[in-house]
Amino acid sequence: MSVGDELLAANAAYTESFALANLTSRPIRRFAVVTCMDVRLDPVAFLGLAPGDAHVIRNAGGVVSDDALRSLVVSHTLMGTQEAFVIGHTACGMQRFTDDEIRARVAENAGVDAGAIQFFTFDDVAESVRAGVRRIQESPYLPGSFAASGFVYDVASGSLSPVD
Amino acid sequence: MSVGDELLAANAAYTESFALANLTSRPIRRFAVVTCMDVRLDPVAFLGLAPGDAHVIRNAGGVVSDDALRSLVVSHTLMGTQEAFVIGHTACGMQRFTDDEIRARVAENAGVDAGAIQFFTFDDVAESVRAGVRRIQESPYLPGSFAASGFVYDVASGSLSPVD
Repeated sequence: MSVGDELLAANAAYTESFALANLTSRPIRRFAVVTCMDVRLDPVAFLGLAPGDAHVIRNAGGVVSDDALRSLVVSHTLMGTQEAFVIGHTACGMQRFTDDEIRARVAENAGVDAGAIQFFTFDDVAESVRAGVRRIQESPYLPGSFAASGFVYDVASGSLSPVD
Repeated sequence: MSVGDELLAANAAYTESFALANLTSRPIRRFAVVTCMDVRLDPVAFLGLAPGDAHVIRNAGGVVSDDALRSLVVSHTLMGTQEAFVIGHTACGMQRFTDDEIRARVAENAGVDAGAIQFFTFDDVAESVRAGVRRIQESPYLPGSFAASGFVYDVASGSLSPVD
């Protein structure tokens, strides 16, 4: 069975108890989350989100990239969110490697120079979260009333800590 | 109570039954998902994912943007995934608006010209998924063995359909 077929089988089971047809695209709790794609993170679970509550944006590192910012501008402008939470985590792959180390691995693996890609690795997760929060606060595409703050998620305990 | 305090309270409840400390960052099922940030989508639930299984990348529209591609290159090169699934959905906000309509709303709302942002709106969700799959297949930063395919998620029924 291919992975795609496994996903379709799991989805068929999911649809049997599906009861979310009445939700709309507007976030009920009017916020968005930016966090990492990491397999250990389930933001819906660790934030106690219900279906319909919030936008969830995820990428490698949970960085406020141009694309995360595009998504936040859509979230606020079209869907009415008023606040964003940037959530980094301990033991992130983007902290264990540098951009140059990733480029060396890509060169080894795919035989190409990935010098054109900025990977957004970081030394300090709290500092990466602060930079993301600042980027949201300083975006000209979001009004000053749009709030942003940050947390670090601890993959060893499941707990969130605010980043000042 | 602020939204941030609500999230911390929900997280404190989550940590009481936390049992995932032994997971590593490597995706157990060796795949990644690219999907939309939409509030109606919980890919962990509708794909039947267990903690540790797969990377989940999310943005407005579930598009294979430069940043989603950066995340997939990290996913494959550093964490060993071998396959990606691009999952669009029905009734997506990125299908209801055009880039120019979003720019007009940003101008109204934040008083700035968002002409520099490509919003990646689309007319046809299956075609957007196909374009994303193609972009992964054609990326020089991923080997030819890295597989990509697509689905559309129906927000009215919870069901996934393969995109040919």
